[in-house]
Amino acid sequence: MPEGLKDKVAIVGVGCTRFGENNSQSYEDMVVEAGLAAFADAGIAPDRIEAAWFGAYSPNNGRGKASVSLADSLRLYGIPITRVENFCATGTDAFRNASMAVASGMYDVVLVLGAEKLKDRPLRGLAREGPHPYQQEGLTAPGIFGLAATRYFHSFGLSRDAGKEKLAQVAVKNHYNGARNPKAHFQMEVTPEQVLKAPMVCDPLGLFDCCPTTDGAAAAVICRADMARKFRPDPVYLKGIGLRVFTGRPWNDSSFDYLGFPSTRAAADEAYRMAGVQNPAREIDLAEVHDCFTITEILNYEDLGFCRQGEGAAFISEGRSSLAGDMPVNTSGGLKSFGHPIGASGIRMIYEVVTQLRGQAGDRQIKNARQGLVHNLGGPGSVACVAVLGN
Amino acid sequence: MPEGLKDKVAIVGVGCTRFGENNSQSYEDMVVEAGLAAFADAGIAPDRIEAAWFGAYSPNNGRGKASVSLADSLRLYGIPITRVENFCATGTDAFRNASMAVASGMYDVVLVLGAEKLKDRPLRGLAREGPHPYQQEGLTAPGIFGLAATRYFHSFGLSRDAGKEKLAQVAVKNHYNGARNPKAHFQMEVTPEQVLKAPMVCDPLGLFDCCPTTDGAAAAVICRADMARKFRPDPVYLKGIGLRVFTGRPWNDSSFDYLGFPSTRAAADEAYRMAGVQNPAREIDLAEVHDCFTITEILNYEDLGFCRQGEGAAFISEGRSSLAGDMPVNTSGGLKSFGHPIGASGIRMIYEVVTQLRGQAGDRQIKNARQGLVHNLGGPGSVACVAVLGN
Repeated sequence: MPEGLKDKVAIVGVGCTRFGENNSQSYEDMVVEAGLAAFADAGIAPDRIEAAWFGAYSPNNGRGKASVSLADSLRLYGIPITRVENFCATGTDAFRNASMAVASGMYDVVLVLGAEKLKDRPLRGLAREGPHPYQQEGLTAPGIFGLAATRYFHSFGLSRDAGKEKLAQVAVKNHYNGARNPKAHFQMEVTPEQVLKAPMVCDPLGLFDCCPTTDGAAAAVICRADMARKFRPDPVYLKGIGLRVFTGRPWNDSSFDYLGFPSTRAAADEAYRMAGVQNPAREIDLAEVHDCFTITEILNYEDLGFCRQGEGAAFISEGRSSLAGDMPVNTSGGLKSFGHPIGASGIRMIYEVVTQLRGQAGDRQIKNARQGLVHNLGGPGSVACVAVLGN
Repeated sequence: MPEGLKDKVAIVGVGCTRFGENNSQSYEDMVVEAGLAAFADAGIAPDRIEAAWFGAYSPNNGRGKASVSLADSLRLYGIPITRVENFCATGTDAFRNASMAVASGMYDVVLVLGAEKLKDRPLRGLAREGPHPYQQEGLTAPGIFGLAATRYFHSFGLSRDAGKEKLAQVAVKNHYNGARNPKAHFQMEVTPEQVLKAPMVCDPLGLFDCCPTTDGAAAAVICRADMARKFRPDPVYLKGIGLRVFTGRPWNDSSFDYLGFPSTRAAADEAYRMAGVQNPAREIDLAEVHDCFTITEILNYEDLGFCRQGEGAAFISEGRSSLAGDMPVNTSGGLKSFGHPIGASGIRMIYEVVTQLRGQAGDRQIKNARQGLVHNLGGPGSVACVAVLGN
């Protein structure tokens, strides 16, 4: 039985650009801003970095190069730099590989950085070249999550209107949080009425049920746990991490019931086991989860063990995942309001959890947070990565 | 000073498809063939694999998905799978990340697999969408290596004709080796005259100075060194590994003299230091190096320390790198004759070195090999990965 990574690796610096339609910044500008912010936060010079991992789903939207873009942007020449890509779990998987490298004894201090420049032109596979072959034989992302919402309503006795109201509560919560986050793409609150009246994207998901397309970059400096206090008095330690991959064609899998994702459940199992978390609802104090669509956040509550299957809709309605709830989820605003620059998303989740655990989250600060969770889901639904971070 | 990976990880299974224009195999077919061959070689069932790394430069030539393609092809569901991309060093960097994961204590037995299906249509960036932005501002791959050849001739007193004859000797040697490799793309010998009369690609590099575009897949099963003999009596251990990234725009770097690559030199330094290799010419018994062009192999001899700068042309002329030489290089046929399916190349180099160290290389077997080297170069020239493998 492998021993895992618990308490072997620490996060001692984080940085994040403002997310949004960043017309005033190039891809490289964003990489530089996030990287230098993380170096400053760790109190180190760039030459302290021994190796780097670059989370990039589509480097500069298909026009860039990956590892050498990071080298050229930050003048990080002469070190190892690896590009990791794993759909919407790209950022957390880059962090996972960087963490294993530190734990392996290869490096003491490394950088993990994710960046995406998506607003300049549509994603290649989605619009520019026509549907991706996987989509030709199956479902788009709104398609699969739209079916999941309808299935959820049906299975747990919600009418379409009642179900849509539950979904809207996720959007309202995440926009409320994002309005308190100076780096969020959409820093504005929305009302349930606005969400419910928004144009339809894929029934029952309207425009405000979908996360936006966003530019942004985020970074973290990680090091061997036993040297973390040399850099900061408040390091955040990796407690557990899990990645799981299932079929890229879930619609062909007769055991897939659309009521949650096996990848999330299995990734969480690994992360919880490594972290020694037995009751996540009690032992996790906040979570940044992959709310690519509002229904996804509700399914995530259940898949991550914050509540039982079928109880996710009540979990949002009762305010348990709001800033004042017993399990604040997406205090940052989530993908919904902070935005979703794919390769950056997982790392900005780490940025948010670290910021909360340090007590530096300003108007969106929660109380007494000692252990937080990050969760990415991609593929769509095929790939999930879960990490538990704590003091 | 980090401790590195020496003797922490072992290779206990390797597999490789035939390389070539594999019209009779899909991308997934090649993944399955290479993966199952590696499992059989290790004597394990697929369910023994705890995690996987997929080296994929352009998954199914831009039409595929990466991590989920590996899961779907081999039915490796419910484990972690990471895609690594690092230009032409994709395969070796995937192996590097897999090795660090094993050494970290996360996994005991993992798979690394690289695959590329390049013959169905031209590479996106090169022909289908016009030049890549980096090429618009700089050089194509034949462009940069053509300049390197001309510069080499000039610096070391070779006329164009004399220089081209040296380059041709690399092609002749690698085709000779490839003709003895039943998995090679081009299993045919060539004469110096054929090489010298071939159509020009980028002066002074003719068609036979360039590696081909190839389909193929290769795989390796790696495990904790201390459990390797449970699988096979003849494990091959990782002795040292290094990856280095420099600027993606070497033509803008005034210190770049085209007489070799800083990435190769720095990656080799790290690998040799970790392996305890002080005199590579004496301590390395064979090498699979990145001969994307014939001039590259000559520069690699020098950058890897097999001879001094300026001596690479004599190194090939004197037969030192031939099968019967004191430092056989590209016994497999190299990129030149075995072919270059980008993400697979580094892993089929590991396949070749393991096959030689086991004494299973048939007509191309060299004598008394105890320590071998693999080397990938990409970017072009910006990224290099070097690994030392031994008994």
